[in-house]
Amino acid sequence: MSKIVWKPAALLAPAPAVIVSCQDGKKANLITVAWTGIVSSDPAMTYVSIRKERFSYEIIARQKEFAINLASEKMCRAVDLCGVKSGRNCDKFAVSGLTPLPCSKIGCPMIEQSPLALECKVTDVIPLGSHDMFLAEIVAVDVDSGLIDENGKLHLDKSGLLAFCHGEYFALGKRLGKLGFSVRRKPHHAASPK
Amino acid sequence: MSKIVWKPAALLAPAPAVIVSCQDGKKANLITVAWTGIVSSDPAMTYVSIRKERFSYEIIARQKEFAINLASEKMCRAVDLCGVKSGRNCDKFAVSGLTPLPCSKIGCPMIEQSPLALECKVTDVIPLGSHDMFLAEIVAVDVDSGLIDENGKLHLDKSGLLAFCHGEYFALGKRLGKLGFSVRRKPHHAASPK
Repeated sequence: MSKIVWKPAALLAPAPAVIVSCQDGKKANLITVAWTGIVSSDPAMTYVSIRKERFSYEIIARQKEFAINLASEKMCRAVDLCGVKSGRNCDKFAVSGLTPLPCSKIGCPMIEQSPLALECKVTDVIPLGSHDMFLAEIVAVDVDSGLIDENGKLHLDKSGLLAFCHGEYFALGKRLGKLGFSVRRKPHHAASPK
Repeated sequence: MSKIVWKPAALLAPAPAVIVSCQDGKKANLITVAWTGIVSSDPAMTYVSIRKERFSYEIIARQKEFAINLASEKMCRAVDLCGVKSGRNCDKFAVSGLTPLPCSKIGCPMIEQSPLALECKVTDVIPLGSHDMFLAEIVAVDVDSGLIDENGKLHLDKSGLLAFCHGEYFALGKRLGKLGFSVRRKPHHAASPK
């Protein structure tokens, strides 16, 4: 394959497409974010990068708390709305038809319709240019009970998560394998009776 | 939906499943990473979080350069191998069947089979616990020429990108919409002749 060299661009994909919730006094707000990821497993830490001009920027900078709400296919329209509208002019929960639920460890709401939410406390704010990075510790995880089986195992793949790729939203498709599949030995078969 | 509160965990999904390439002297290495994301659009900046114990950690800490190679479905087995094997004991390019190609702006190779690579220079290393975060500026983007149409537009969706979700690899599935679709007006139709 021949390669064409382009100038620097934010072309990492797929990215998660999530809705970040936050609250300042009585005003809760939502903002869609794709610039997010896990930065450490233990302690579990994440980040969201947000432009200074965004309404949620000031709220999170002041309150030092937010929740990351994973989004399902069904939430795609709400995800898009929360990315293009501003909370300065509207109530994002009302506009998007999403329902706030109290978090357990932080003072802002999570989204009831979200399959899984990460409750986060900001540990650092790093200015980088167009965006500031809010580094945060994950302090609790809220899981939709319908995704947990009778053995307590989480089936996140059943929630129809959204991905963001080069300006477009996609559903997750075919399952291709489990971490470690390339080196896993085939299971032993019991000798068949003769 | 009722929610069950779990203790903190790295449950953000979907994450990108990418292979990071690096080089120290003559020895090139590959490591699969899901803890990566965009942290700023302008300048275009990214990060990869890597455990200190990993062979690539020292290489990247010393050389301050790496490339993020996006991975396609066809590369799934190589992605898994580069995540579970160590470059201390093997040549990852040989083991995974991937082909090194020189980068344009940095001294380590990219992967020929990758649809798109981000050439990166480390700007900061932030220790966080299990992982250290390598913050980096994207200095060039290498795009497979087959993904660019005659108008110069990139069709990244045609490359069959891999996503990582809760310990499993997935292909991207159905396209659900373009950023801004929720507020876009329907195109005007020319008045039909009477």
